Amino acid sequence: MLSRNQVKYIRSLHLKKYREIHGEFIAEGSRLVSDLLESGFKVRQILAEEEWIRDHRDLLAGKTWITITAITGDEMKKITLLSSPGPVLAVVSIPGPISPGTGPEEELILMLDGIRDPGNFGTILRIADWFGIRQVICSEDCVELYNPKTVQATMGSLARVTVWYRDLPGYLSRLKPGVPVYGTFPEGENIYAKTLKDNGIVVIGSESAGISPEVKERITDRISIPFFAPAGDRKGHAESLNASMAAAIVCSEFRRRMHFNRTLI
Amino acid sequence: MLSRNQVKYIRSLHLKKYREIHGEFIAEGSRLVSDLLESGFKVRQILAEEEWIRDHRDLLAGKTWITITAITGDEMKKITLLSSPGPVLAVVSIPGPISPGTGPEEELILMLDGIRDPGNFGTILRIADWFGIRQVICSEDCVELYNPKTVQATMGSLARVTVWYRDLPGYLSRLKPGVPVYGTFPEGENIYAKTLKDNGIVVIGSESAGISPEVKERITDRISIPFFAPAGDRKGHAESLNASMAAAIVCSEFRRRMHFNRTLI
Repeated sequence: MLSRNQVKYIRSLHLKKYREIHGEFIAEGSRLVSDLLESGFKVRQILAEEEWIRDHRDLLAGKTWITITAITGDEMKKITLLSSPGPVLAVVSIPGPISPGTGPEEELILMLDGIRDPGNFGTILRIADWFGIRQVICSEDCVELYNPKTVQATMGSLARVTVWYRDLPGYLSRLKPGVPVYGTFPEGENIYAKTLKDNGIVVIGSESAGISPEVKERITDRISIPFFAPAGDRKGHAESLNASMAAAIVCSEFRRRMHFNRTLI
Repeated sequence: MLSRNQVKYIRSLHLKKYREIHGEFIAEGSRLVSDLLESGFKVRQILAEEEWIRDHRDLLAGKTWITITAITGDEMKKITLLSSPGPVLAVVSIPGPISPGTGPEEELILMLDGIRDPGNFGTILRIADWFGIRQVICSEDCVELYNPKTVQATMGSLARVTVWYRDLPGYLSRLKPGVPVYGTFPEGENIYAKTLKDNGIVVIGSESAGISPEVKERITDRISIPFFAPAGDRKGHAESLNASMAAAIVCSEFRRRMHFNRTLI
């Protein structure tokens, strides 16, 4: 049974202001909530249909800090943000400051410069997760990670990829010399024909403005994804690829090189 | 000046039913409309701010079949579907039956099986356009190409990529022997390590259901985009890549091979 106070509290978490005050966010759907339960995230409340709770007994066992509430589909409608709600909604603690782990001297890290769209941001985290990239550094004007739309778009990758927000020019200015900082530019070197390292930073710019001038100054390796003219006499080609498309292609090529072919093409 | 009849007619084209009755669709924004004016599409009406008309005089010159109406920003609000309308809206003829051009015996063609989301569909057309793929064959249950959301999401690639709707199993059953039909499956061969041809068909399945059983039977080459485990002890990885991500990575790899390296890795 859902109390009026629970409804009020969970609905407040739809808003950034209250997520910041309470240090908690919401996540919905069976797959995403299961991934979060298995991850380092601290799940505080589970509100779910009885059947879901029964089916996930093993995953919930021993986690005495979780308040579990069995609710009906009609009760779910009062707290969900989804048009087709799933059987479970979780309230999860926003983690405190994260220790950075190893840096770009040792592994490949994605950097997002001004990504504002929650769907794009979530998609990019899915790509990072797919390609085994563990860390994503965001500019302070990127969309909030705990925005419910971002949380849902990550499809659980949130549980596996560490995200933090930094002043990007400041961060880049403190890098050790020799750490490559890749960025995509129309006039950059053909990514398929350039030597790529296994470590460093790959910057993805915003769809509207690209990479910001202060970050651009710190790019050491300009790369481009070449377009291909079709056979026949067709004029022109797509003006650009969007940010998440570019991220998908660039990450794919870095990982292909790392695992299958370190040398040029 | 916008007449009441014009408003009524253009608003009717927001709906599929009236697009089919009238054989016309709408497209908005300076870049998209310019691309359509330069393409083989027949633009019937231009409704635009005076300044836009003046700036695009050369593009409009000699096209006597176009009705040009100068309108104000307030008038635009009565006919647009965009939350931030641009300076121009065009009414464009839906082309009649298209001649298929060369087939998959000679070039690489994308096939979409059940893509329902206009944004995903538009993104995939942008990818095709970027990589010089001229033809996209859609199942009959794919979203309508002339849906205004699809038209906008293509960002002008609609003007350069030919799309048609077919019964896919029937189409595939009539292919010449030896034409490869590629499809992505979790258990497929590693795309980075497999010989890829320059011609054939690449099938992209729907995000929810993947490739349908009837199409699956006709796949000759099952490929997969490998995921990469991160360093350290992190468990799991993203469950899947979405349809447009997969399309981006697969098209990138086919074109890289074709242009830079025909042999294995």
